[in-house]
Amino acid sequence: MRLAGVAGEAKIEEEQWLFQEGLKAEKIYVLKEGAVELITRVDGDFELPISMLRQPGNCFGTSALVEPHVYSLSARCAEGGSILVIRQGDLHELIQEDRDLGCTVMTNWAEHLLNRLKDNRQQLKIHFKTLFQTMHS
Amino acid sequence: MRLAGVAGEAKIEEEQWLFQEGLKAEKIYVLKEGAVELITRVDGDFELPISMLRQPGNCFGTSALVEPHVYSLSARCAEGGSILVIRQGDLHELIQEDRDLGCTVMTNWAEHLLNRLKDNRQQLKIHFKTLFQTMHS
Repeated sequence: MRLAGVAGEAKIEEEQWLFQEGLKAEKIYVLKEGAVELITRVDGDFELPISMLRQPGNCFGTSALVEPHVYSLSARCAEGGSILVIRQGDLHELIQEDRDLGCTVMTNWAEHLLNRLKDNRQQLKIHFKTLFQTMHS
Repeated sequence: MRLAGVAGEAKIEEEQWLFQEGLKAEKIYVLKEGAVELITRVDGDFELPISMLRQPGNCFGTSALVEPHVYSLSARCAEGGSILVIRQGDLHELIQEDRDLGCTVMTNWAEHLLNRLKDNRQQLKIHFKTLFQTMHS
Protein backbone atom coordinates (compact mmCIF):
# COMPACT_ATOMS: atom_id res chain seq x y z
CA MET A 1 0.00 0.00 0.00
CA ARG A 2 1.66 3.25 -1.14
CA LEU A 3 -0.09 5.23 1.60
CA ALA A 4 2.07 3.44 4.17
CA GLY A 5 5.14 5.16 2.70
CA VAL A 6 3.97 8.60 3.82
CA ALA A 7 2.40 7.60 7.15
CA GLY A 8 4.16 7.89 10.51
CA GLU A 9 3.02 6.12 13.66
CA ALA A 10 2.42 7.85 17.00
CA LYS A 11 1.25 6.81 20.44
CA ILE A 12 -1.79 8.58 21.91
CA GLU A 13 -2.83 8.93 25.52
CA GLU A 14 -6.22 9.41 27.15
CA GLU A 15 -7.34 13.06 27.27
CA GLN A 16 -4.71 14.08 24.68
CA TRP A 17 -6.02 16.59 22.08
CA LEU A 18 -5.01 15.73 18.53
CA PHE A 19 -6.40 18.83 16.83
CA GLN A 20 -8.83 21.67 17.40
CA GLU A 21 -11.83 22.80 15.32
CA GLY A 22 -11.14 25.94 13.28
CA LEU A 23 -7.38 25.46 13.06
CA LYS A 24 -5.40 24.78 9.87
CA ALA A 25 -5.77 21.11 8.91
CA GLU A 26 -2.32 19.83 7.98
CA LYS A 27 -2.58 16.18 8.94
CA ILE A 28 -4.92 13.27 8.32
CA TYR A 29 -5.15 10.50 10.92
CA VAL A 30 -5.91 6.80 10.86
CA LEU A 31 -6.78 5.03 14.11
CA LYS A 32 -4.71 1.91 14.80
CA GLU A 33 -5.60 1.16 18.42
CA GLY A 34 -7.56 2.84 21.21
CA ALA A 35 -10.43 5.31 20.81
CA VAL A 36 -10.76 8.89 19.60
CA GLU A 37 -13.70 11.19 20.22
CA LEU A 38 -14.77 13.88 17.73
CA ILE A 39 -16.25 16.93 19.40
CA THR A 40 -17.61 20.36 18.51
CA ARG A 41 -18.17 23.32 20.81
CA VAL A 42 -21.42 25.28 20.98
CA ASP A 43 -20.49 28.98 21.24
CA GLY A 44 -17.52 27.94 23.38
CA ASP A 45 -20.11 27.09 26.07
CA PHE A 46 -20.24 23.32 26.10
CA GLU A 47 -19.02 20.31 24.16
CA LEU A 48 -21.26 18.51 21.72
CA PRO A 49 -19.99 14.95 21.10
CA ILE A 50 -20.17 14.03 17.40
CA SER A 51 -18.76 10.53 17.26
CA MET A 52 -16.52 8.00 18.95
CA LEU A 53 -14.05 6.16 16.71
CA ARG A 54 -13.02 2.69 17.88
CA GLN A 55 -12.48 0.70 14.69
CA PRO A 56 -8.87 0.34 13.57
CA GLY A 57 -8.75 1.97 10.13
CA ASN A 58 -11.18 4.77 11.03
CA CYS A 59 -9.96 8.02 9.46
CA PHE A 60 -10.32 11.48 10.96
CA GLY A 61 -9.03 14.99 10.35
CA THR A 62 -10.15 14.43 6.77
CA SER A 63 -11.02 18.13 6.37
CA ALA A 64 -7.32 18.35 5.52
CA LEU A 65 -8.14 16.70 2.19
CA VAL A 66 -9.95 19.71 0.67
CA GLU A 67 -10.02 23.50 0.62
CA PRO A 68 -9.99 25.51 2.88
CA HIS A 69 -7.99 22.88 4.87
CA VAL A 70 -9.51 23.76 8.22
CA TYR A 71 -10.57 21.16 10.85
CA SER A 72 -14.35 21.17 11.23
CA LEU A 73 -14.20 19.29 14.56
CA SER A 74 -11.83 18.72 17.47
CA ALA A 75 -10.35 15.29 18.24
CA ARG A 76 -9.46 14.00 21.70
CA CYS A 77 -8.10 10.62 22.61
CA ALA A 78 -10.66 8.73 24.73
CA GLU A 79 -8.62 5.59 25.23
CA GLY A 80 -4.84 5.25 24.81
CA GLY A 81 -3.46 3.54 21.72
CA SER A 82 -1.74 4.47 18.48
CA ILE A 83 -2.48 6.34 15.27
CA LEU A 84 -1.04 6.78 11.79
CA VAL A 85 -0.34 10.39 10.86
CA ILE A 86 -0.20 11.49 7.21
CA ARG A 87 0.87 15.01 6.29
CA GLN A 88 -1.68 16.61 3.97
CA GLY A 89 1.05 17.74 1.53
CA ASP A 90 2.41 14.20 1.18
CA LEU A 91 -1.02 12.73 0.56
CA HIS A 92 -1.81 15.48 -1.95
CA GLU A 93 1.37 14.68 -3.90
CA LEU A 94 0.60 10.97 -3.87
CA ILE A 95 -2.94 11.66 -5.14
CA GLN A 96 -1.61 13.84 -7.95
CA GLU A 97 0.87 11.14 -9.01
CA ASP A 98 -1.41 8.15 -8.65
CA ARG A 99 -4.87 9.07 -9.95
CA ASP A 100 -6.25 5.58 -9.28
CA LEU A 101 -5.35 5.92 -5.62
CA GLY A 102 -6.70 9.50 -5.61
CA CYS A 103 -10.01 8.42 -7.07
CA THR A 104 -10.32 5.60 -4.52
CA VAL A 105 -9.46 7.81 -1.54
CA MET A 106 -11.88 10.52 -2.64
CA THR A 107 -14.70 8.08 -3.46
CA ASN A 108 -14.36 6.33 -0.09
CA TRP A 109 -14.29 9.65 1.69
CA ALA A 110 -17.33 10.99 -0.18
CA GLU A 111 -19.20 7.79 0.72
CA HIS A 112 -18.24 8.30 4.35
CA LEU A 113 -19.30 11.99 4.29
CA LEU A 114 -22.63 11.10 2.70
CA ASN A 115 -23.28 8.60 5.50
CA ARG A 116 -22.39 11.16 8.16
CA LEU A 117 -24.70 13.66 6.44
CA LYS A 118 -27.54 11.12 6.53
CA ASP A 119 -26.93 10.49 10.25
CA ASN A 120 -26.98 14.22 10.92
CA ARG A 121 -30.21 14.66 9.00
CA GLN A 122 -31.70 11.86 11.04
CA GLN A 123 -30.77 13.73 14.23
CA LEU A 124 -32.25 16.95 12.82
CA LYS A 125 -35.45 15.08 12.00
CA ILE A 126 -35.75 13.92 15.60
CA HIS A 127 -35.37 17.51 16.79
CA PHE A 128 -37.96 18.81 14.34
CA LYS A 129 -40.34 16.02 15.26
CA THR A 130 -40.04 16.89 18.97
CA LEU A 131 -40.59 20.54 18.11
CA PHE A 132 -43.59 19.68 15.94
CA GLN A 133 -45.12 17.50 18.66
CA THR A 134 -44.57 20.22 21.31
CA MET A 135 -46.30 22.77 19.07
CA HIS A 136 -49.28 20.50 18.46
CA SER A 137 -49.79 19.09 21.93
CA MET B 1 -16.04 18.79 -21.50
CA ARG B 2 -16.44 15.01 -21.72
CA LEU B 3 -19.32 15.06 -19.22
CA ALA B 4 -21.45 16.83 -21.82
CA GLY B 5 -21.28 13.70 -23.99
CA VAL B 6 -23.29 11.64 -21.50
CA ALA B 7 -25.73 14.35 -20.35
CA GLY B 8 -29.22 14.81 -21.72
CA GLU B 9 -31.27 17.98 -21.28
CA ALA B 10 -34.84 18.04 -19.95
CA LYS B 11 -37.42 20.70 -19.18
CA ILE B 12 -38.82 20.84 -15.65
CA GLU B 13 -42.09 22.35 -14.45
CA GLU B 14 -43.10 23.77 -11.09
CA GLU B 15 -44.29 21.12 -8.60
CA GLN B 16 -42.75 18.33 -10.69
CA TRP B 17 -41.02 15.63 -8.59
CA LEU B 18 -37.63 14.60 -9.96
CA PHE B 19 -36.92 11.80 -7.50
CA GLN B 20 -37.99 10.46 -4.14
CA GLU B 21 -35.93 9.73 -1.01
CA GLY B 22 -35.27 6.04 -0.45
CA LEU B 23 -35.59 5.02 -4.11
CA LYS B 24 -32.81 3.63 -6.30
CA ALA B 25 -30.56 6.50 -7.43
CA GLU B 26 -29.90 5.98 -11.13
CA LYS B 27 -29.46 9.57 -12.31
CA ILE B 28 -27.43 12.61 -11.33
CA TYR B 29 -28.80 16.06 -12.15
CA VAL B 30 -27.31 19.46 -12.91
CA LEU B 31 -29.50 22.55 -12.71
CA LYS B 32 -29.43 24.73 -15.84
CA GLU B 33 -32.32 27.11 -15.22
CA GLY B 34 -35.12 27.50 -12.66
CA ALA B 35 -35.09 26.26 -9.06
CA VAL B 36 -35.18 22.85 -7.37
CA GLU B 37 -36.01 22.18 -3.72
CA LEU B 38 -34.47 19.30 -1.76
CA ILE B 39 -36.80 17.89 0.86
CA THR B 40 -36.92 15.11 3.43
CA ARG B 41 -39.97 13.71 5.20
CA VAL B 42 -40.20 13.27 8.96
CA ASP B 43 -41.94 9.92 9.58
CA GLY B 44 -44.10 10.61 6.53
CA ASP B 45 -45.77 13.29 8.65
CA PHE B 46 -44.43 16.56 7.30
CA GLU B 47 -41.83 17.91 4.90
CA LEU B 48 -38.53 19.25 6.16
CA PRO B 49 -36.95 21.56 3.55
CA ILE B 50 -33.20 20.95 3.23
CA SER B 51 -32.10 23.37 0.54
CA MET B 52 -33.19 25.40 -2.46
CA LEU B 53 -30.96 25.19 -5.52
CA ARG B 54 -31.01 28.23 -7.83
CA GLN B 55 -27.46 28.47 -9.22
CA PRO B 56 -26.96 27.04 -12.70
CA GLY B 57 -24.40 24.27 -12.27
CA ASN B 58 -25.76 23.11 -8.89
CA CYS B 59 -25.70 19.30 -8.77
CA PHE B 60 -28.21 17.09 -7.04
CA GLY B 61 -29.12 13.42 -6.82
CA THR B 62 -25.42 12.87 -6.14
CA SER B 63 -26.20 9.89 -3.88
CA ALA B 64 -26.20 8.05 -7.21
CA LEU B 65 -22.39 8.40 -7.24
CA VAL B 66 -21.72 5.90 -4.43
CA GLU B 67 -23.02 2.70 -2.86
CA PRO B 68 -25.79 1.88 -1.99
CA HIS B 69 -27.06 4.19 -4.81
CA VAL B 70 -30.18 5.31 -2.96
CA TYR B 71 -31.48 8.90 -2.93
CA SER B 72 -31.13 10.39 0.54
CA LEU B 73 -33.55 13.26 -0.22
CA SER B 74 -36.46 14.05 -2.52
CA ALA B 75 -36.24 16.74 -5.22
CA ARG B 76 -39.13 18.88 -6.45
CA CYS B 77 -39.03 21.64 -9.03
CA ALA B 78 -39.84 24.98 -7.35
CA GLU B 79 -39.57 27.13 -10.47
CA GLY B 80 -39.77 25.90 -14.08
CA GLY B 81 -36.55 25.65 -16.10
CA SER B 82 -34.25 22.97 -17.41
CA ILE B 83 -31.82 20.37 -16.11
CA LEU B 84 -29.07 18.11 -17.37
CA VAL B 85 -29.60 14.44 -16.60
CA ILE B 86 -26.66 12.02 -16.42
CA ARG B 87 -27.22 8.29 -16.05
CA GLN B 88 -25.21 6.90 -13.13
CA GLY B 89 -23.87 4.02 -15.27
CA ASP B 90 -22.56 6.41 -17.94
CA LEU B 91 -20.83 8.62 -15.40
CA HIS B 92 -19.35 5.58 -13.68
CA GLU B 93 -17.87 4.36 -16.99
CA LEU B 94 -16.44 7.80 -17.74
CA ILE B 95 -14.86 7.96 -14.27
CA GLN B 96 -13.30 4.52 -14.75
CA GLU B 97 -11.85 5.53 -18.11
CA ASP B 98 -10.71 9.01 -17.21
CA ARG B 99 -9.18 8.96 -13.71
CA ASP B 100 -8.32 12.66 -13.83
CA LEU B 101 -11.96 13.50 -14.38
CA GLY B 102 -12.96 10.94 -11.72
CA CYS B 103 -10.63 12.45 -9.18
CA THR B 104 -11.93 15.96 -9.92
CA VAL B 105 -15.61 14.95 -9.73
CA MET B 106 -15.07 13.07 -6.46
CA THR B 107 -12.96 15.81 -4.87
CA ASN B 108 -15.50 18.51 -5.76
CA TRP B 109 -18.30 16.38 -4.46
CA ALA B 110 -16.49 15.56 -1.20
CA GLU B 111 -15.85 19.29 -0.73
CA HIS B 112 -19.54 19.96 -1.27
CA LEU B 113 -20.57 17.19 1.15
CA LEU B 114 -18.19 18.48 3.81
CA ASN B 115 -19.77 21.94 3.50
CA ARG B 116 -23.25 20.50 3.79
CA LEU B 117 -22.14 18.53 6.83
CA LYS B 118 -20.79 21.71 8.44
CA ASP B 119 -24.10 23.52 7.75
CA ASN B 120 -26.01 20.64 9.30
CA ARG B 121 -23.80 20.63 12.38
CA GLN B 122 -24.42 24.34 12.68
CA GLN B 123 -28.17 23.67 12.69
CA LEU B 124 -27.73 20.92 15.27
CA LYS B 125 -25.73 23.31 17.45
CA ILE B 126 -28.58 25.82 17.38
CA HIS B 127 -30.99 23.10 18.48
CA PHE B 128 -28.72 21.95 21.29
CA LYS B 129 -28.13 25.52 22.40
CA THR B 130 -31.89 26.12 22.60
CA LEU B 131 -32.29 22.89 24.53
CA PHE B 132 -29.45 23.81 26.86
CA GLN B 133 -30.88 27.26 27.52
CA THR B 134 -34.35 25.79 28.16
CA MET B 135 -32.86 23.35 30.69
CA HIS B 136 -30.98 26.10 32.48
CA SER B 137 -33.62 28.86 32.51
